[in-house]
Amino acid sequence: MDSAAYFASPKSLIDDSTKKTTALEALKSIGPWAKRKARNACTKKMLYRRVPILTWLPTYNTTFAVGDLVAGITVALTLIPQALAYSNIAGVPLQYGLYGSFLGSFIYIIFGSCKDVPVGPTALISLLTFQTVGHHGPEHATLLCFFTGVIQVLMGLFGLGFLIDFVSGPVSSGFTSAAALIIITSQVRDVLGIRASGNTFVKTWHSILSDIHNSQVGDATMGLTCIIVLLLMRVIGTMQIGPKGEEAYQKTWQKVVNKCIWLFGTARNAILVVVCGIISWVYCRSGPPPFQVIGDVPSGLPALKLPPFGFEMVQNGTTVSVPFLEMMDNLGPGIIILPLIALLENIAICKAFSNGKPVDATQELIAIGLCNFANSFVQAFPGSGALARSAVNNSSGVRTTLGGLYTGIIVIVSLLFFTPYFYYIPKAALAGIIIAAVIFMVEVKVVKPMWRSKKSCLIVCFLTFIACLVLPLEIGILIGIGINLLFILYHAARPKISVERLNSTDGTEYLMLTPDRCLIFPSVDYVRNLVTKHSLRQGIPVVIDCTHIYGADYTAATVVHTLTQDFASRQQPLLFYNLKPSVCSVFEGLAPKDFIVFYDEDQLDNLLNQWSCSKKELEIMST
Amino acid sequence: MDSAAYFASPKSLIDDSTKKTTALEALKSIGPWAKRKARNACTKKMLYRRVPILTWLPTYNTTFAVGDLVAGITVALTLIPQALAYSNIAGVPLQYGLYGSFLGSFIYIIFGSCKDVPVGPTALISLLTFQTVGHHGPEHATLLCFFTGVIQVLMGLFGLGFLIDFVSGPVSSGFTSAAALIIITSQVRDVLGIRASGNTFVKTWHSILSDIHNSQVGDATMGLTCIIVLLLMRVIGTMQIGPKGEEAYQKTWQKVVNKCIWLFGTARNAILVVVCGIISWVYCRSGPPPFQVIGDVPSGLPALKLPPFGFEMVQNGTTVSVPFLEMMDNLGPGIIILPLIALLENIAICKAFSNGKPVDATQELIAIGLCNFANSFVQAFPGSGALARSAVNNSSGVRTTLGGLYTGIIVIVSLLFFTPYFYYIPKAALAGIIIAAVIFMVEVKVVKPMWRSKKSCLIVCFLTFIACLVLPLEIGILIGIGINLLFILYHAARPKISVERLNSTDGTEYLMLTPDRCLIFPSVDYVRNLVTKHSLRQGIPVVIDCTHIYGADYTAATVVHTLTQDFASRQQPLLFYNLKPSVCSVFEGLAPKDFIVFYDEDQLDNLLNQWSCSKKELEIMST
Repeated sequence: MDSAAYFASPKSLIDDSTKKTTALEALKSIGPWAKRKARNACTKKMLYRRVPILTWLPTYNTTFAVGDLVAGITVALTLIPQALAYSNIAGVPLQYGLYGSFLGSFIYIIFGSCKDVPVGPTALISLLTFQTVGHHGPEHATLLCFFTGVIQVLMGLFGLGFLIDFVSGPVSSGFTSAAALIIITSQVRDVLGIRASGNTFVKTWHSILSDIHNSQVGDATMGLTCIIVLLLMRVIGTMQIGPKGEEAYQKTWQKVVNKCIWLFGTARNAILVVVCGIISWVYCRSGPPPFQVIGDVPSGLPALKLPPFGFEMVQNGTTVSVPFLEMMDNLGPGIIILPLIALLENIAICKAFSNGKPVDATQELIAIGLCNFANSFVQAFPGSGALARSAVNNSSGVRTTLGGLYTGIIVIVSLLFFTPYFYYIPKAALAGIIIAAVIFMVEVKVVKPMWRSKKSCLIVCFLTFIACLVLPLEIGILIGIGINLLFILYHAARPKISVERLNSTDGTEYLMLTPDRCLIFPSVDYVRNLVTKHSLRQGIPVVIDCTHIYGADYTAATVVHTLTQDFASRQQPLLFYNLKPSVCSVFEGLAPKDFIVFYDEDQLDNLLNQWSCSKKELEIMST
Repeated sequence: MDSAAYFASPKSLIDDSTKKTTALEALKSIGPWAKRKARNACTKKMLYRRVPILTWLPTYNTTFAVGDLVAGITVALTLIPQALAYSNIAGVPLQYGLYGSFLGSFIYIIFGSCKDVPVGPTALISLLTFQTVGHHGPEHATLLCFFTGVIQVLMGLFGLGFLIDFVSGPVSSGFTSAAALIIITSQVRDVLGIRASGNTFVKTWHSILSDIHNSQVGDATMGLTCIIVLLLMRVIGTMQIGPKGEEAYQKTWQKVVNKCIWLFGTARNAILVVVCGIISWVYCRSGPPPFQVIGDVPSGLPALKLPPFGFEMVQNGTTVSVPFLEMMDNLGPGIIILPLIALLENIAICKAFSNGKPVDATQELIAIGLCNFANSFVQAFPGSGALARSAVNNSSGVRTTLGGLYTGIIVIVSLLFFTPYFYYIPKAALAGIIIAAVIFMVEVKVVKPMWRSKKSCLIVCFLTFIACLVLPLEIGILIGIGINLLFILYHAARPKISVERLNSTDGTEYLMLTPDRCLIFPSVDYVRNLVTKHSLRQGIPVVIDCTHIYGADYTAATVVHTLTQDFASRQQPLLFYNLKPSVCSVFEGLAPKDFIVFYDEDQLDNLLNQWSCSKKELEIMST
């Protein structure tokens, strides 16, 4: 089978002919191109892609409604305790987590392309929010939410979703694992009831260890118990009675029991919070409880108002105004990284639940961008889709993004009526919920397959992990990406060339050199040196097999030009076999008639035979 | 011809087996590897490579000596006026250029690997020196020379010479052209005799244009005349009488005349300086000349002393000490870029005169590093090989690097005896020499071939050119390199996949997808989406032709794993054709028995036939 034939497929032919257009044609084609682009953006198909609700709403039916209702309620049971807990990670008062849990869900119903994603606060984005906002308070977090939304929408409109392609699996794993460890570290303090500080992983642990003797028995007991109970409930939730995994063969009572067990596992956070709250309430009736409680959470819905572009605060009795530019300065470069990480988390979830269908990164960027944008008007901090809640959503049988409607309504109801009861929730219980959730984000399980598959990827993963632990997270992931890109550059700079000594039909020996990838600037000198070395050593005709050379640039053309001149001055034939037309035109731009290209073996044989005949004639003439 | 066969060459087999070593073996192998590396570094071959004089000195003979003597003297005639002029570009007193023109030449005799390179000040490096040192004075320039040498030697020892592979032809052209324009701009002031200032291209021109009405007639006449005369002399120098280019057929008197013409062209800078000096001396005898002269140049050799790690200077009558750290701070990041650019210039020259032989970048790094290191002990500023002087050297018939000996001696003699006469050289003449030299560094000639060859390269070239003009040169070239690397990343991220619908021997239709390059993280999701799209649309068996896939990583393995699972759940066969063993082992690390690989067409036919038979059976059973 001749691989060259494939490249005569219509697509590559079009590519080649496009390259041969003249400057004038290229300029002329810009006008229609822009028109076509604009027209494309306005088609009905594009509208359906950008507003996915149009696709599924017309066929919405009762089965869908039941599935979405059940899923929406179940997700709310997970979301409410998580929203409170993640506010703690983000370093803002607890109600802000709930503020970010309803409006976004409503927006996502319209624009979301993945039914399993419930938008809201997530552990990772909360941590990044904390690292970006620091102790500047919720106004900064809301402003960050606004810019996250705006940047995500803009990136979506400009088609920059492809940027997350440059975050490889190993970098993503290293980053997530480090983030999980940092989150756990931040919660150990609350579990033990001590006053630790420090803004990096190492400093926080140092501070924890130096204060560990002050651990409060009440908090520690509550916290550790919660973690153990949650992990047990998680295991119990996966159990089944009767014939396993085959619901069709289960009896009705077995099905009911199994559903109950599943609900017990799925709603474990809500159950734990309620139980701990009751225990705490009992204690509080007879004096202060032996553990810290989260205290007052303001009741009612947040005011609908513009995000704070500058605000005033009271410091030491005087009113200080914080202008917009100072806020931007406080936020720093995290404002660019956070939207991308939020997208990364979201796309990872979409992929996990897409069943092999392509995920539209652009649409997801626009969707969660709009959610964050809207949320910034109700004083929320940035959010995204969260893996744990997506799993709950999926296993609850969600059918469309409409599930978010019920989740949002329950959050609103709880904000209106249930906040007085939140007072009694123990801090250690919330910390326990976080730890029991994020402990599974430490991706130990990828180490073994990565080692077996490609060891260099494990190195990248490990370096990213370390960088994220000891440096700010956004710097850590950039370092990881940078190291990973070096591998690509090395790939481009050092192609492999296989060398073979072959004979033509009449016995003329020649050297066949086969580079295995494209010729572009970082590699061309290396290739030239290799070709020169081998050809000088052997002194026979050299054939370069260009089957695998899919691209070349001007630097490659100059080097090929020099090579052909060198060979010509040595009177050693240099032939190019199977050169693609697109590559050939790049080479010919520099030296039109300099080199000999052929496309089948007969031509090669003829050329070599001609050469050896003429050489023999010359030898006869000179003797 | 089956391309797969090439990859069974010994080299690739070794690569594959290496990858299969276990962790323990990998660790064990580090010890012997280090030993082997150390032993390699001490072999006789390596000694001859690192000290090239050992190779050529034993066979040195009279013919060589005559060639080197003539070349050495001719180069000196070019070097001395250039050294004075380039000091002006670097912003240091004129004698410093001569200080950097002898010791380096002596060192290069021993360590240089390219006979045509005469080390000394160059226009480009002088400009970079000025941009790095600013107006901090010659002590800073000497310290910069020291660090340039040290960094070059260290980079050579650590084998970092490959870094210049990442400067492509277009970036190099854009950079050189911009540098040439900046140099010309800096000299226009002296040619016109005006007082212009400004540290960027635009500001300097703005300043020149606003002061142009103050142009001095004397300076302008002298400067413009010099430029025209030099360009004319350059043209005359290439002329020949008698049969052109065939020395063997020329008569003796024709040969003598031709040699004289050649010498007239080659020594044009020296001739011009002498003539202008005499004119100026005549004027000076009868009062102040109508143009500026360069004035006193201190006589005598520079003192041999340590480079200034901190120094004292007199400012407004008081002695101010400038400590080492302040000097380093003044130099800034240029300290890293300059050594690399110096190497770039040097290697470009070596390549131009290597006649197709490979150039040893590492050895050149060490050689010019040692030259700069030594030069910093005689108060020189950084230097490198210069293209113009190399051309003179080559056409003067240099045989070995020993030509530098005579050049160095002449520079020493002129420092000892001729400096009093330098007083009379007009400033405008030196400026004219520079302009007439660097005007040919503006590489307009590359635009046409670059346009014909690859238009994207022209864009890179142009962007680099603009960036270097409006920003500091070192930032400009970094931006150019960065843009160029984005092309590589795009290459890696967006492979082309050709799609064909084929039939097996018994008529089973299948889809053949052929990606044209390696599968690594930025591209895998793109490839997955394409494969999924095509296979969902067609619903027939899919064969992925992996002939061109020379590498893969863990992220690719995860995606292939997901793809195989997706296809399995759809009961659509997915087959891999011609997968290289090294890539196969990467995929298998994640999912050992998940996917089907085959290596010839018979296997493919059998698999497809089996599938269509079993499908037919299923259809019969279900009806």
